[in-house]
Amino acid sequence: MRKHITGFSNPTVKYLRSLRDKKHRKRAGQFLVEGLRLLEDARASGRVPRTLVMAEGREHPLLARLEAEVLAGGGEVIATTPDILSKITGKANAQAVAGVFDEWDTALSTLDRGAAPIWLAAQALRDPGNLGTMLRTCDAVGAGGLVLIDDCADPFSAEAVRASMGAVFTVSLAQARWEEFLPWLRGGEGQLVAASLRDAVPYRGAAYRAPCFILVGNESQGLPEDYEAACDLRVTMPMRGRADSLNAAVAGAVLAYEVLAAVAPE
Amino acid sequence: MRKHITGFSNPTVKYLRSLRDKKHRKRAGQFLVEGLRLLEDARASGRVPRTLVMAEGREHPLLARLEAEVLAGGGEVIATTPDILSKITGKANAQAVAGVFDEWDTALSTLDRGAAPIWLAAQALRDPGNLGTMLRTCDAVGAGGLVLIDDCADPFSAEAVRASMGAVFTVSLAQARWEEFLPWLRGGEGQLVAASLRDAVPYRGAAYRAPCFILVGNESQGLPEDYEAACDLRVTMPMRGRADSLNAAVAGAVLAYEVLAAVAPE
Repeated sequence: MRKHITGFSNPTVKYLRSLRDKKHRKRAGQFLVEGLRLLEDARASGRVPRTLVMAEGREHPLLARLEAEVLAGGGEVIATTPDILSKITGKANAQAVAGVFDEWDTALSTLDRGAAPIWLAAQALRDPGNLGTMLRTCDAVGAGGLVLIDDCADPFSAEAVRASMGAVFTVSLAQARWEEFLPWLRGGEGQLVAASLRDAVPYRGAAYRAPCFILVGNESQGLPEDYEAACDLRVTMPMRGRADSLNAAVAGAVLAYEVLAAVAPE
Repeated sequence: MRKHITGFSNPTVKYLRSLRDKKHRKRAGQFLVEGLRLLEDARASGRVPRTLVMAEGREHPLLARLEAEVLAGGGEVIATTPDILSKITGKANAQAVAGVFDEWDTALSTLDRGAAPIWLAAQALRDPGNLGTMLRTCDAVGAGGLVLIDDCADPFSAEAVRASMGAVFTVSLAQARWEEFLPWLRGGEGQLVAASLRDAVPYRGAAYRAPCFILVGNESQGLPEDYEAACDLRVTMPMRGRADSLNAAVAGAVLAYEVLAAVAPE
């Protein structure tokens, strides 16, 4: 059964709105996903929202199915006004629906490194759009997942989820400090490859081997020197212009496609 | 000589603030660039602001040099408070300086297609971050420039300029409707290559030839079917996941690096 909320000061509205803020997401262990398309991606991956918030009068067959599944799973369905939905999402033109999901376990131990020939890793990646784009690239190249090292943007932020185009639901995700990541990696198979300008070989035709972990660094600082030194392979892409760097998500994708051709050709 | 502005309602403050809005930028033919780093990139490319706006008391040798060049070029230097600079840029933590530049001519006729073996083109690209990232990729691969086809994001918006990491000042830029672009392209040398899923060959090892124009489509619609049909070559990248697309700027970059290896190896 739907619960109807019409007041801006309703505590549920306040709670949902608070999920726009990282601190509140971490405290609650929940995040908010906007729009039917992303909610459908989640559903296709077996993830059903705990709470569904819909604008009254915006009926759609997919929405009806989603509502039924949320209720069947013991979740809550809230019908409200478009204005309140806008207040919750912070968007002037809010989507007709949003869903609240529990965050999931992103420990390294949840990864199965043998499950895929390619993995992406990012260190201190600050831009949630880049993070989401890297998740999307993981999906495209059939990578096992994305490892977020040190302090990165929040993969459960609205911007990262949106940029991932739903890949946040399908691609494995782990978060770890470098001090945890490196021993974990060295505890099994795995080649660590850095996109680098120091002591690097050309990225084309380099000796990649699966499972290959492609590591990109922070948007403005790049990788710390000792992180690069710990990698098995440092590769560089041609830089023919004035600058000496690419967007982090772009660099990761160019490398990922090169590694794909080397370790998992069709 | 510096002009001092201390009032929020000063007409110059209102004018500068209005440049955050595309409509006002187009009317004025000017745009605002924030931060010393981007202004230094502009200076290195021979572009000096018409107006420089500085926060009082934030002295820096590079800023002093920039101020001297602006004054030497007949421009205006405005000193103001950090609060007013924040109001102008719309950022809570404003940079210490911003500069106003005249927009430049982006007609197709300004491009010299023989100047580079690779060019990027984007159709109906809506995200200014993607647009700036493509400019940055143009710089990295030594592309001649970026052609924006049909209604794209504004390359002179703050977000596009920032994402370009200064490449907006170094990479040629053209804006045209498809109906102008295609006859211009066919009026000389130039291979048009679409990133596509229809009737496409694998992107690796395809028969690229310089000058090669790499065309990517709108973020959600892709390229119109007749635009793809007009291309000389349609290439596709492996899609091993659930989705069948990459971020537009990522797709352009992966292709650009492949084309670079084919038409301009080191």
